[in-house]
Amino acid sequence: MELKEVLNKYKQLIDENIASYIPAECPTKLKESMTYSLEAGGKRIRPALLLMVSDHYKVSRKISLPVACAIEYVHTYSLIHDDLPAMDDDDYRRGKPTNHKAFGEGIAILAGDGILNIAFEILGNLEGVDSKLKVRLIKELSSSSGVSGMIKGQVHDLEGEGTNLNGAQLEDIHKYKTGKLLTAPLKMAAYLSNLDDKAVNALADYGYHFGMAFQITDDILDVCGDFDSLGKSVGSDEKMDKSTYVSLYGLEKAKEMANSHIQKGVNELSINNISVPYLPELLTYLLDRKA
Amino acid sequence: MELKEVLNKYKQLIDENIASYIPAECPTKLKESMTYSLEAGGKRIRPALLLMVSDHYKVSRKISLPVACAIEYVHTYSLIHDDLPAMDDDDYRRGKPTNHKAFGEGIAILAGDGILNIAFEILGNLEGVDSKLKVRLIKELSSSSGVSGMIKGQVHDLEGEGTNLNGAQLEDIHKYKTGKLLTAPLKMAAYLSNLDDKAVNALADYGYHFGMAFQITDDILDVCGDFDSLGKSVGSDEKMDKSTYVSLYGLEKAKEMANSHIQKGVNELSINNISVPYLPELLTYLLDRKA
Repeated sequence: MELKEVLNKYKQLIDENIASYIPAECPTKLKESMTYSLEAGGKRIRPALLLMVSDHYKVSRKISLPVACAIEYVHTYSLIHDDLPAMDDDDYRRGKPTNHKAFGEGIAILAGDGILNIAFEILGNLEGVDSKLKVRLIKELSSSSGVSGMIKGQVHDLEGEGTNLNGAQLEDIHKYKTGKLLTAPLKMAAYLSNLDDKAVNALADYGYHFGMAFQITDDILDVCGDFDSLGKSVGSDEKMDKSTYVSLYGLEKAKEMANSHIQKGVNELSINNISVPYLPELLTYLLDRKA
Repeated sequence: MELKEVLNKYKQLIDENIASYIPAECPTKLKESMTYSLEAGGKRIRPALLLMVSDHYKVSRKISLPVACAIEYVHTYSLIHDDLPAMDDDDYRRGKPTNHKAFGEGIAILAGDGILNIAFEILGNLEGVDSKLKVRLIKELSSSSGVSGMIKGQVHDLEGEGTNLNGAQLEDIHKYKTGKLLTAPLKMAAYLSNLDDKAVNALADYGYHFGMAFQITDDILDVCGDFDSLGKSVGSDEKMDKSTYVSLYGLEKAKEMANSHIQKGVNELSINNISVPYLPELLTYLLDRKA
């Protein structure tokens, strides 16, 4: 099967199941708001990373699918809060009005809070997983998404707005803001697959390079993409006066940097004998994407 | 020791330790913002409830203190988000400017998100607790704080603003918005103390009546309290055109209702032979408080 086909298959699986983890007792309007963002689509890269690894090591989908969705919940909550007027102030996300534009700010804040909570409820309620592994998964997800992980990157991003960041500061933002939640599915898949520490670290390093390549490509697409394929306003970083890899290094150098991370990510897998199908080409696929 | 003295002792313990669970890697400004709200004080009723029960059953403070703080983290995050302009739009909390007034809305949103995350990190990192118990604690906290718990109440509260609620709707808001996070410490203390289901349920029922009495008293204080002892604007519910027990039933009937919950809470303990010191008088103490 071709990579694109595999990604579509995973995307479909997530799209179909993601909203099923909302507790039945959830108030109707909140459920609508959460479902709106959870089902808004996107590439589902984080769950795909988790499923690629855990499928290869024959982890039951009954276990890996909810874990994959828990990570996508954290990603979705972060987008809802990131889009708020007090944060990035975005009106569109994936071609649709952002959550607060559709449901109002109050509900959007609570939808984000609720989705983050559900991520931990999903992991706590996993069936067929022993408690030790559950705790390991919960620790990984909470530290990846928390103040020493993704939120740390969001704070640095917020503080950096309108200032001229240097390369190290920019890398620091993305290492945490995007990177931590791209490393998490790889580590969590490794835990589910009962891999040794060496393999966990190799997958985490791959995740780091994946995250950097992903972010640099995002910056490139913000300059070169178009609204229809991107689903958000092109040039929105520039409009916000945000430092990006392109504004800092220029387009050609940014492409080179993305390429270097892609090479390093591929090497990380090969020198550690991790032969999970599709992971190497996924990196190259990234650089060629349009959105 | 008198109840007031016991409460002060617990409050001091929480005040001194609450900020110690912020991960060292947290960005400086975010840490300041989180510490500001975590150390803003308040009665520390939730951790006090947990410690009263777990101390009585001789649970080590090395375990009960971080669990007590995790619950107070969830309470604190909910206050920060609740005070935001898109929610209750409050400028003062406990006599100090609210978090977003002091640090800006963006940081306040992230501080809330970060504090919620840390609550789960604390439980995941507990030492000397087996994984099965950790998972039980995590499940209880996530469901109490989530969309079938506290957030459900926040949504109903937000939707009810400016409308005339009936008694059932008002009770429903408080059962979830305040009640779930007052029941959680009692149930979690029972888990830590290895109590049987009957005792867990009795403590949970006590918690429900405690929560209702607490909320009705809050509504009474909003009419009868004063700014100095309350630390927030008196009459702010009325200003927001919010339905309260006082607006719905009148002052005298509201006092009667609070009293009825207090009686039921006391009875719940006695018929189930739960003799945790201070729990019965804590209910009466509530009705007599000034803030």
